[in-house]
Amino acid sequence: MQIAMVGLGRMGGNMARRLMRDGHECVVYDRDPAAVEALVADGAVGVGDLADLAGHLAPPRAAWVMLPAGSVTDRVVSELAGYFSPGDVIVDGGNSHYKDDVRRAKTLVEQGIHYIDAGTSGGVWGLERGYCLMVGGPAEAVTRLEPVFATLAPGDSGIPPSPGRTGGGSAERGYLHCGPAGAGHFVKMVHNGIEYGLMQAYAEGFDILRNANSESLPPDERYDLDLADIAELWRRGSVVTSWLLDLSASALAENPDLSNYSGFVQDSGEGRWTVQAAIDEAVPAEVLTAALFARFRSRQEHTFAEKVLSAMRHGFGGHREPTGD
Amino acid sequence: MQIAMVGLGRMGGNMARRLMRDGHECVVYDRDPAAVEALVADGAVGVGDLADLAGHLAPPRAAWVMLPAGSVTDRVVSELAGYFSPGDVIVDGGNSHYKDDVRRAKTLVEQGIHYIDAGTSGGVWGLERGYCLMVGGPAEAVTRLEPVFATLAPGDSGIPPSPGRTGGGSAERGYLHCGPAGAGHFVKMVHNGIEYGLMQAYAEGFDILRNANSESLPPDERYDLDLADIAELWRRGSVVTSWLLDLSASALAENPDLSNYSGFVQDSGEGRWTVQAAIDEAVPAEVLTAALFARFRSRQEHTFAEKVLSAMRHGFGGHREPTGD
Amino acid sequence: MQIAMVGLGRMGGNMARRLMRDGHECVVYDRDPAAVEALVADGAVGVGDLADLAGHLAPPRAAWVMLPAGSVTDRVVSELAGYFSPGDVIVDGGNSHYKDDVRRAKTLVEQGIHYIDAGTSGGVWGLERGYCLMVGGPAEAVTRLEPVFATLAPGDSGIPPSPGRTGGGSAERGYLHCGPAGAGHFVKMVHNGIEYGLMQAYAEGFDILRNANSESLPPDERYDLDLADIAELWRRGSVVTSWLLDLSASALAENPDLSNYSGFVQDSGEGRWTVQAAIDEAVPAEVLTAALFARFRSRQEHTFAEKVLSAMRHGFGGHREPTGD
Amino acid sequence: MQIAMVGLGRMGGNMARRLMRDGHECVVYDRDPAAVEALVADGAVGVGDLADLAGHLAPPRAAWVMLPAGSVTDRVVSELAGYFSPGDVIVDGGNSHYKDDVRRAKTLVEQGIHYIDAGTSGGVWGLERGYCLMVGGPAEAVTRLEPVFATLAPGDSGIPPSPGRTGGGSAERGYLHCGPAGAGHFVKMVHNGIEYGLMQAYAEGFDILRNANSESLPPDERYDLDLADIAELWRRGSVVTSWLLDLSASALAENPDLSNYSGFVQDSGEGRWTVQAAIDEAVPAEVLTAALFARFRSRQEHTFAEKVLSAMRHGFGGHREPTGD
Repeated sequence: MQIAMVGLGRMGGNMARRLMRDGHECVVYDRDPAAVEALVADGAVGVGDLADLAGHLAPPRAAWVMLPAGSVTDRVVSELAGYFSPGDVIVDGGNSHYKDDVRRAKTLVEQGIHYIDAGTSGGVWGLERGYCLMVGGPAEAVTRLEPVFATLAPGDSGIPPSPGRTGGGSAERGYLHCGPAGAGHFVKMVHNGIEYGLMQAYAEGFDILRNANSESLPPDERYDLDLADIAELWRRGSVVTSWLLDLSASALAENPDLSNYSGFVQDSGEGRWTVQAAIDEAVPAEVLTAALFARFRSRQEHTFAEKVLSAMRHGFGGHREPTGD
Repeated sequence: MQIAMVGLGRMGGNMARRLMRDGHECVVYDRDPAAVEALVADGAVGVGDLADLAGHLAPPRAAWVMLPAGSVTDRVVSELAGYFSPGDVIVDGGNSHYKDDVRRAKTLVEQGIHYIDAGTSGGVWGLERGYCLMVGGPAEAVTRLEPVFATLAPGDSGIPPSPGRTGGGSAERGYLHCGPAGAGHFVKMVHNGIEYGLMQAYAEGFDILRNANSESLPPDERYDLDLADIAELWRRGSVVTSWLLDLSASALAENPDLSNYSGFVQDSGEGRWTVQAAIDEAVPAEVLTAALFARFRSRQEHTFAEKVLSAMRHGFGGHREPTGD
Repeated sequence: MQIAMVGLGRMGGNMARRLMRDGHECVVYDRDPAAVEALVADGAVGVGDLADLAGHLAPPRAAWVMLPAGSVTDRVVSELAGYFSPGDVIVDGGNSHYKDDVRRAKTLVEQGIHYIDAGTSGGVWGLERGYCLMVGGPAEAVTRLEPVFATLAPGDSGIPPSPGRTGGGSAERGYLHCGPAGAGHFVKMVHNGIEYGLMQAYAEGFDILRNANSESLPPDERYDLDLADIAELWRRGSVVTSWLLDLSASALAENPDLSNYSGFVQDSGEGRWTVQAAIDEAVPAEVLTAALFARFRSRQEHTFAEKVLSAMRHGFGGHREPTGD
Repeated sequence: MQIAMVGLGRMGGNMARRLMRDGHECVVYDRDPAAVEALVADGAVGVGDLADLAGHLAPPRAAWVMLPAGSVTDRVVSELAGYFSPGDVIVDGGNSHYKDDVRRAKTLVEQGIHYIDAGTSGGVWGLERGYCLMVGGPAEAVTRLEPVFATLAPGDSGIPPSPGRTGGGSAERGYLHCGPAGAGHFVKMVHNGIEYGLMQAYAEGFDILRNANSESLPPDERYDLDLADIAELWRRGSVVTSWLLDLSASALAENPDLSNYSGFVQDSGEGRWTVQAAIDEAVPAEVLTAALFARFRSRQEHTFAEKVLSAMRHGFGGHREPTGD
C-alpha cells in the first residue's frame, strides 16, 4: 500500500527501505533534502514539504512520522493534520510519551483523523531483522495499516510460538495492537525500562568479575578473569543468554578493557517515564530505577550529595577524606 | 573416558546420561539405591558406597560430585579423598562458595589430589541442550578432563563466535577454564547474580504493564494489556529478547494471571554471595542487590521495618494506617 | 494582624489557635459548622461561607487555606479569588504540588491577587512547638504576612544559630522565604522526601536488630536484643540522635513488638513528587526512592513481579516455590 | 576505679581524660611515647609496654583497648591476655566485627579472662558530650565495670526518658548491656549502618534542592535555593530535625557550595557488615545498602559497569555517548 514517511534519519530511512523492498509505495520527506534524495535513489517519491506530501497521497492517506524529539513531533503532526482529511491516518513511530499520544489523539479525532502510536524497537539492525512494533490506536485504523506493520515487523523470525500459546495472533509475527491511544508507546516505554534494568544487571556482573583481582582481596581469592571468554561462554546453554549478552560479548572481544568508552551514559526519556508510571501505579520498581540512577550518576564527576556526606563526616568525626588523587 | 558421578538428582543423573550417550563410562553412586538402579538401567556401573566407587575406577581416577548443599559436599569430598590416590581428580559441580573451593583445594593438594570446581548452568534443560561449564582448578587436571567437559557442554549450539573474536577457544563450545581453585564457582556465582537482576527487571516491567489499568490512574490513560501477547511480541526483533523472556512468555501463555504461583520466591546462595563479593570489592551493585532484597521481602507478610514506619507516622502526625484489609 | 483560616482540621484549627494566642484576629471557615463553632469558642470570628469570609476581612485581605487535597484547594482558592480584590493575599498552607502553585500564581496575578505557598511541618505537635514554615511567593506579600509567619513558627526554640552562620535571618526563627511561587512547597516536598529516607533507615536498622536472633544464624552469633532500650540509648550521645528516633523510642517502649501496627504504610504525594523532581533534575536519589518503594510494597500481599519470578524459576529449573504457609 | 587505656588516639586519649576527670585512675599505653606523655601531663600513669601495664594494675585488672583496626586489636588483645590472670577483664572499645568478638571471647574464656566488646559512638565530641556505649559480654564483668561505663556515657543529657518507658535502666543514662559477646559491636554496627542511611537521605535531599535551578527545567519551575538557610530552618520544628542536620547546617553555613570537599567518601567496615548481617538474616535493607554503594561509587571516576552500558548502547543503537567533557 501507499504510505508516507516523514523523517528519514537512521530509523525512518531504513523503515522506508524495508517497506519498498516488500512492494509498498513510499512518499518521503525530511527537512534535509539530501536524506530525501537518498531515498528517491532507492525508489521513493520525494517531496519538498508536508503540503506537497499530502498532495501525493491518495485518500484515505497514511503517514508515518519518525522524528527524534517530542516537541518536533507535536509540530509536524499538527501541521500534517492541517493538510489531511477525515479518514486519514497519522502514525507516530517515534518515542513519544503515551500521555502526549492521548492528547494528540483527542485533538485529531475532532478533525476525523486517526492517530496511531507505534512503539518501534530494532535500532540499526531493523532494516534486516525487522522492527518489533507495539501499536496503540483505534482498531479501524490499525487494521487498515496492517500490511505496513506486517512488512516492518520481523515476522516469525524462525521462532516458534511459545509452548502454551493457542490461537496465533500477530504477536507471533512481531507486531501487536496493544490497545487505544498511547498503549503502543506505553508498552514500548516499559520495554525500554526493562532494557535499562537488563543492561545494568549485566554491567554490574561484569564489573564484579573485572574487580575480582582487586588488591583489597586475599591473594588466594583473587581471580584475573577473561571477560570476553566468559561472555562468549554464557551465550551457550546458560540462563543469562540474550541479545544484550551477544552485544556485550562482541564489544568485549573487540576491546576487553572497553577503553574505547568513557563510561558517560546517556538516558532517553523512556527510562524516566517508566519510573514515573511505576510511581503513578504504586508499583515498586527498584531495579528499573536503580538502572536509571546509575546513568544519572555516570554523567557527573561528583554529586553534591557526596560532598554533603563528606561534610557530615568531618562534622561528627573530624574525618578528612582523601582526595582520591 | 571413565568418570564417576556422585549424586544422581535432577542434575547429576542427567549429566551421567549425557556422558554415556557420548561414549564415556560412568560409575555412579547415590545414597538412594533407586537412583543408582535407574542409571544402571541406562548403562552405568552402579556402586554401593564411596569405597566401592574408588575401587571401580582405574587410576588416575576422576569423580564428579553433584550434590545440592555445601556441607554435604564437604563431607563427601573429604571421604572420597580418603579412598583416592595422588594424581586423582575430584570435581565439585554443585553450587559451592568459591572460598570453600579454595579451602578444599588447599587440603587436597597436600594429598596430591587435584580439586576442580565446575560451575554448571543448564537446569532441567541440560540433558538435551548441554551444560554451560565454568571451571576452576589446576591446568593439568582440567586438561585431563577436557573430554568430559566437551561432552557435557552445549558445543557451539549453532551460534557463531561473536564478531570481533579471534583465536577460538573452548568458550565457543560452552566450557571454559576460568582460573585457579574457586574461579569456576566465582564466575558461576556472578552468573546467577546477573540472572537475579535480569529476572527482576522483567518482573518489574510486567508488573507495571499489569497495573496499567489501575483505578488510581486517569481513565483515558489506563490500559488493559495482554501480557502474554506482549511477551510473545518482544521475542521477535526487540532489544529485550532472551531465554528468560522465552520462559516468561510461555508461563504467561499458560496462565496470564500467573495465579498458579503464590509469589513466595526462594533465593539460593549465589545471589547473596554475589552481593558479598561486590561489597568485598567495593563495587556498587544496586540492581543485583535490589533483586535479592525483593526475594527476601516476598517471603514475609510484613516486615518489622514497616511497623516501625507506621509507628513513627503515628508519632509525628497522628496517622492511623488503614489495615489493608 | 487580621487573617482568615479556611479549613479547620487537625492542622488549620491549631494554627488558628496559635495565631489567636499571640494576639492575631482570626476569621475562620470550615464546611463543617462544628469545627467553626469550636474555634469561635476559642475566640475566632466564624463565618458561614467564603463570600461572608471575604466580607469580614479588611482590605488588603489575607486568607490562609489549609486543606488536605489538591483538587479541593484548587476549587477553594479559585472561589476565594472571586471574592477578593487586587492587593489581597491567598496563602496555601497545604501540601500542594509546586507546579500547581506556579499555575495558580499565574492565574491570580492577572487579578492582582498575591498567591503564597507555605509548606508547613509540625503535625500534631505544632500548636505547642510551632510550625516550621517554607514560604514561596512575591516578596511584597510575604513581607506583609511576616507577623503571621513569625507567630506560627517555632521561634528560636532555644536552639542557637549554627556555628559559621552570620547575619541572622528568619530561618533562625523557623520560617523562610525560599523563593518565588512554588519554592515553599518545593522545599517542603524535599523535606518530606528526606523524611521518608530517614524513617526507612531507622526502620531497616531496627529490623536487622530484631532479626538478630533468627534461627538461620549460628547459635553463638544470635542476639535477643531489647529494641526499646537500644532506641532509648541512642538518644544520648550517639550520631543517630533525632526527633524521629525519639518517636521510635517511645513507640517501642509502649509496645516492643509494635504488634499494634499492621505494617501497611501509606505514602502522601510528597515522597512521589520528590522522586519525580530528582528524575527531572537527573539527580540520583536511590535512598529516597527505595524508601518510597518500600511503602508501595508494604501495601500488597504479593506483587505480580514476584509471581513472574516464580514462573521463570519454574521454567528454567523446575523449581516449585514453597507456598510460604 | 582503676582502668588501663591502650591506644591514645583521638578516641582513647579523650576517653582516658573523661575517666580521670571523674576520679578514675588511668594507666595508659600507646606505641607513640608522645601520646603517653600527653596523658601523663593530664594525670595518668604512663607505661612503656603491655607487660608494664599489667604490672601497674591491681587484680582483678581491667584494660580498655581502643585501637583503629581489627588486626591490631587481635594482636594486642592476645598479648595482653598473656600478662593477665583469671578474673581480669579486657574491653575492646574499637570497631571490631562482632564475629571477631565471639571468637576472641571463646579463646579468652579458656584462660578465665573476661572479654567485653563496647561499641562506642561519640567521635570528636565525646570528651564533652560523653560516649554512647553499646556493651556485650558476660554479666559479671559488665557489672564490675559499670562505674567506668557510667562515667564515659553521656548520662541523662537532660533528656527525659521516652513517654511509655517504665523501670528506668542504664539506657536512660547512655550505656547498655546489650547481650553476650559481640552484642555490643553488633548494635554499634547497625547504629553505623543507620547512620549511613540517614546521611544519604539528607545528602540526596540537598542535592535535589541544589539542582532545582537546573537549566533542563522549565524556567518558571526553577528555584535558586539557599541551602544554608533551609538547613537552619529545618532545625526548628520540622520532622527532620537531628544532630546530623545540625552538622549539615553548620557546614553549609561555612561554605554553601561545600567546595572544600571533593566528594570522595570513605566507608568504614560497619556499613558493609550491616549489609552482610541483613543478608544473613534475609532482611531487605535497600536504603542502608544504597547508602553504602553511593560511597563506593563516589570513589571512582567511572565504573567498568558504565562502560559496559555504553558498549551495549553502541551495539544495539549505534549510539555514541558524548564524552562528558
